[in-house]
Amino acid sequence: MGAVKTKRMPRAVREQQMLDAAVRTFGQRGYMAASMDEIAELAGVSKPLVYLYLNSKEDLFTACIRREAAALTEAVRAGVRRDAPADRQLWEGLGAFFTHTAQNPDGWSVLHLQARTHGEPFAAEVAAMRAEIVAFVTQLILAAAREAHRDPDLPESEVAGLAEALVGAAESLAAWANATPGVTARQAAATLMNFAWAGLGNLMDGRPWSPPDAPHEVSG
Amino acid sequence: MGAVKTKRMPRAVREQQMLDAAVRTFGQRGYMAASMDEIAELAGVSKPLVYLYLNSKEDLFTACIRREAAALTEAVRAGVRRDAPADRQLWEGLGAFFTHTAQNPDGWSVLHLQARTHGEPFAAEVAAMRAEIVAFVTQLILAAAREAHRDPDLPESEVAGLAEALVGAAESLAAWANATPGVTARQAAATLMNFAWAGLGNLMDGRPWSPPDAPHEVSG
Repeated sequence: MGAVKTKRMPRAVREQQMLDAAVRTFGQRGYMAASMDEIAELAGVSKPLVYLYLNSKEDLFTACIRREAAALTEAVRAGVRRDAPADRQLWEGLGAFFTHTAQNPDGWSVLHLQARTHGEPFAAEVAAMRAEIVAFVTQLILAAAREAHRDPDLPESEVAGLAEALVGAAESLAAWANATPGVTARQAAATLMNFAWAGLGNLMDGRPWSPPDAPHEVSG
Repeated sequence: MGAVKTKRMPRAVREQQMLDAAVRTFGQRGYMAASMDEIAELAGVSKPLVYLYLNSKEDLFTACIRREAAALTEAVRAGVRRDAPADRQLWEGLGAFFTHTAQNPDGWSVLHLQARTHGEPFAAEVAAMRAEIVAFVTQLILAAAREAHRDPDLPESEVAGLAEALVGAAESLAAWANATPGVTARQAAATLMNFAWAGLGNLMDGRPWSPPDAPHEVSG
């Protein structure tokens, strides 16, 4: 029965194998340089079968982006226990994020680099995932503000800005961690907590950083 | 004499006018949709003259990226007084960054969005500028560490990570500030200082954020 199964695999399984091979190839060689021949060979299937299942190189790439985006978002959500204190939730979420991007460097390269550098439709797919993560982080910061009873003093636009800053910092750090030998997911998460949490924490406690008043001013 | 000058303008001046028109067109319409006809018309010159001076759409786009990258880097460097305390330098640098990106939204769109989404050679141009800004921020953080006499306790890889986080957060916030009505450069800079400085400050003072020790652990 096992032998029959490997010969006539369900379509869903074959498709995942093709996507595995495609993510690896797109991530390591880049969207332009990756060939459908290479992907078919790595997946152990014929090239016509890849076209039959995934239609075109563009559609295959889009399917890769969607799968990797869903996996990353799910990893972050699963890593956070919503009943924990806010700093703990942020630490767990960042830990899950950096662990996932470290364990799936090709998937992260597809999302962060390849999908953004090869045209609007692919970039729009990633932008949708990013918006979801920003919304999730915004909720986390709002929860932290509620915990600290600071709601009235932390305007919505400030929270949105903090969430954008945190997500941008995490993206930047993940790319750097994957490109730098010896940097672990835990270190990357701790660096971002060091950078961000004490600042956010002070803000929640009503101790914002104050701009100096001086002649050399930052224009509004 | 003025009339003669406008008719037979020096090449350098004409070229800047073409680049002004190109940055505006690429920034607002996107690299793909922008046409050389449109750019020539906006610059008030003939299309053949644009090709004569800038060679091709690709070369024109590359020239735009280089000019905008140099202008942004220069604005940040000029905004920072190197003899000021570290938090002041960071505030001034961020203020100069957000002021420049707010005043040059098309230039920022070319650098942050267009140059990254239309192929490797353009992305590489922006990556070079980004590396320069990360190096500059790294020096700022090292200077802050020296001020706080914390050199031995803040390893180089930690400083590199903090610089990556800060630059990623600034990029993300600049894109958000430009897309969000009513957010000023000063607000964006203050948000990032709130987010980052208190955290960095605590770190410099030898009070890092400590990861909780618990069964639900972030994998290294």
